[in-house]
Amino acid sequence: MARAVVLLSGGLDSATCLALAQRDGLECHTLAFDYGQRHRTELVAAQRLADSMGAASHRVIELGLGTIGGSALTDSAIDVPESGGEGIPITYVPARNTIFLSLALGLAEVLDAEQIHIGINSVDYSGYPDCRPAFVDAFQAMADVATKAGTEGHGPRIMTPLLNMSKADIIRAGLSVNLDYSLTVSCYQANEKGEACGRCDSCRLRKEGFISAGVQDPTRYRSI
Amino acid sequence: MARAVVLLSGGLDSATCLALAQRDGLECHTLAFDYGQRHRTELVAAQRLADSMGAASHRVIELGLGTIGGSALTDSAIDVPESGGEGIPITYVPARNTIFLSLALGLAEVLDAEQIHIGINSVDYSGYPDCRPAFVDAFQAMADVATKAGTEGHGPRIMTPLLNMSKADIIRAGLSVNLDYSLTVSCYQANEKGEACGRCDSCRLRKEGFISAGVQDPTRYRSI
Repeated sequence: MARAVVLLSGGLDSATCLALAQRDGLECHTLAFDYGQRHRTELVAAQRLADSMGAASHRVIELGLGTIGGSALTDSAIDVPESGGEGIPITYVPARNTIFLSLALGLAEVLDAEQIHIGINSVDYSGYPDCRPAFVDAFQAMADVATKAGTEGHGPRIMTPLLNMSKADIIRAGLSVNLDYSLTVSCYQANEKGEACGRCDSCRLRKEGFISAGVQDPTRYRSI
Repeated sequence: MARAVVLLSGGLDSATCLALAQRDGLECHTLAFDYGQRHRTELVAAQRLADSMGAASHRVIELGLGTIGGSALTDSAIDVPESGGEGIPITYVPARNTIFLSLALGLAEVLDAEQIHIGINSVDYSGYPDCRPAFVDAFQAMADVATKAGTEGHGPRIMTPLLNMSKADIIRAGLSVNLDYSLTVSCYQANEKGEACGRCDSCRLRKEGFISAGVQDPTRYRSI
């Protein structure tokens, strides 16, 4: 049974990643980050998803991204916007996928895992530079020389099964393997009960995804 | 004045990096990591070095590498060895330079810094895969597409001024710009006063460096 590290934020995309990896019979070791995000109920959701889907192990790494700042997701002085807008949004966390994949690379090395799964999605990707295919390819090339395995010319495979899928495709894929999306939290400012605001970029993309997929949206929205 | 993020561990190599960058007139923002390392007096040394050399700012990012484990430097259950040995040593922290550079990349993006300086050294590099020139090149290529700047085809330059220098060369370079090496701590298991064991790999390389450079070793060793 091949071993994989699966980045699991507790959101819709990473939960789908985990569901597909479990379906493929991989031994999945999930990894979440406590990086000072506003939407901390994500972490509760990640643990719940790992448990309910039978991950082989689940870890949470403490990571003080607030020290770097520069994002509405880690800096409480910056408000989360409620409409899309042009260019790279303020919810972009500088180098976040690079940082998360690097830590996954470290864990993959310790566990001797052959794969790293990440729910990067370049179609409706919210304008983040580190969700582009060119980034994934460059990270793979770097991972191939960065570790002990790298001294033999190969690192773990970076798997991005959602890369070219629309949000609706992702939802359909998850439902086809019986993923319960009510367990996931996508909202950038969910409350303690995991109830979504329904208005931030992440809520908007998720909501549109369920509509496009033509299935009922199980998201719990809070009354505002 | 060009702006640079300088990775500063508090050890001999990174202190030399900072001294050379300051000499070159860069605006240096230093970055250290509290990653559960045994040698925590490093962090005290890093702050002291940043202060005494007039860094523009100094940050410490909390980073729970103990959750990943797999190294004598972050896992108290693994002893620090006192002789070199063959292959990649147990003091290797999986993907550490990848992780540290990724976080530096995030900070560089927030500060709009043009350069990242790291004291990687491939000559007497202790056998770490992520100290090799091939790794640095691959990280640069990845950094060129990973960030906002990456959407315009370039990221910050990864500067490795010590890459091809021997430990003796590094020490001579630091002394030429009046770096006070008594402020640095290299030992993997220094005590609270910053006194070195004199026996671990890092102490051994440092000691041999001062001997090769033909200068007095200002390291404070503890009596054992």
